[in-house]
Amino acid sequence: MYNKEKQIAGEKAVDFIEEGMTLGLGTGSTVYYSILKIGELVKKGFKVKAVSTSSNTTKLALSLGINVLPLDSVETIDLAIDGADEIDRDFNAIKGGGGALLYEKIVASLAKRVIWVVDSSKIVEKIGKFPLPVEIVRFGYTHTINHFQNVGMNPVLRQKDGNIYITDNGNYIVDLHLGEIDKPEELSSFLNSWPGVVDNGLFLNVSHLVIVGRGNTAEVITCK
Amino acid sequence: MYNKEKQIAGEKAVDFIEEGMTLGLGTGSTVYYSILKIGELVKKGFKVKAVSTSSNTTKLALSLGINVLPLDSVETIDLAIDGADEIDRDFNAIKGGGGALLYEKIVASLAKRVIWVVDSSKIVEKIGKFPLPVEIVRFGYTHTINHFQNVGMNPVLRQKDGNIYITDNGNYIVDLHLGEIDKPEELSSFLNSWPGVVDNGLFLNVSHLVIVGRGNTAEVITCK
Repeated sequence: MYNKEKQIAGEKAVDFIEEGMTLGLGTGSTVYYSILKIGELVKKGFKVKAVSTSSNTTKLALSLGINVLPLDSVETIDLAIDGADEIDRDFNAIKGGGGALLYEKIVASLAKRVIWVVDSSKIVEKIGKFPLPVEIVRFGYTHTINHFQNVGMNPVLRQKDGNIYITDNGNYIVDLHLGEIDKPEELSSFLNSWPGVVDNGLFLNVSHLVIVGRGNTAEVITCK
Repeated sequence: MYNKEKQIAGEKAVDFIEEGMTLGLGTGSTVYYSILKIGELVKKGFKVKAVSTSSNTTKLALSLGINVLPLDSVETIDLAIDGADEIDRDFNAIKGGGGALLYEKIVASLAKRVIWVVDSSKIVEKIGKFPLPVEIVRFGYTHTINHFQNVGMNPVLRQKDGNIYITDNGNYIVDLHLGEIDKPEELSSFLNSWPGVVDNGLFLNVSHLVIVGRGNTAEVITCK
């Protein structure tokens, strides 16, 4: 149902790319369409460089002939394009459904400009219905999960194909089923201060522009 | 000069161990003496279990016949014994000179009681002269270091034998040369909220008891 909207939003973001830019390429089913479109441009001789936020995105981008560089070899990122799982009106977002939150957050923090591309179902009044991913180190992970249980955060250790899901950075992910999030800044601080937490999927004050696929059109929203 | 004090403090901590306890074993040159002493007791039939905060400590403890278990296999930690690089009068500490801050912090957070053992040089008026270790992910580490440089924190990427030092968790360590730390709580929050930071070496409200080797005696200080 939302695939058309994903495509419309993902492709629209490419309008904001200028030749010579260094791009941050996000991870997921909407930015997938951005990457395909960038690949088409590159095949026509359009010159861009890119850094990637996941092994999946690196594979895809390389297969399309996009010049993917290690993050530590670029000086700056001009524009990052990424998806999101939920976004509220203040541009607070939950990301990490695809498991790449840590690298996505690092890339976003370095980018001069960040665009999120989403289908219309991702725009919400209040974030938190989507389970909040938290990346945790393996050492003591059962205790970290117990801690989240004890403070009422309904943690579920993420699995994939019957095994514990492992991030590109070698960590685990716990999805917190919170229902709704009232104070995202406080929550993010609370989570990151807990030993064993590497980072969490709250992206606050990160994005400058959101492109929403809505029916057959792309709605471009600038941060207030 | 301080080796005698380290030994006195390290050995004194063993007085607080009761048979049947699950211990958290720290890392470093002072807790080394605690571990040696525990090994002697174990050889005499004293029964304890332990979890370890580093591969070095695991090796040492196993070589002494101490029963070292994976952290995720124990339900609770009764007592953690660890060293520290600097401690002020409020029991704020800098740890991580030995490179094990992440696992030390996780173990300390789980322990019912935490004892720090130090020589007298580690007790300071204000922490911060000792460089503050910060554990960071490798992805984008040059940018993380630049960030610390830009905010005036004098970062130095830790090296060992001519290579970048790698923690047991596969990350890098940046030592921040701050001179002094005025607001440790705020600094810790600031550091942990930065994408790419796994944790930092500020241990605040963690320890219940500090044992200081001073000359030929062990001074036991209880937290106010």
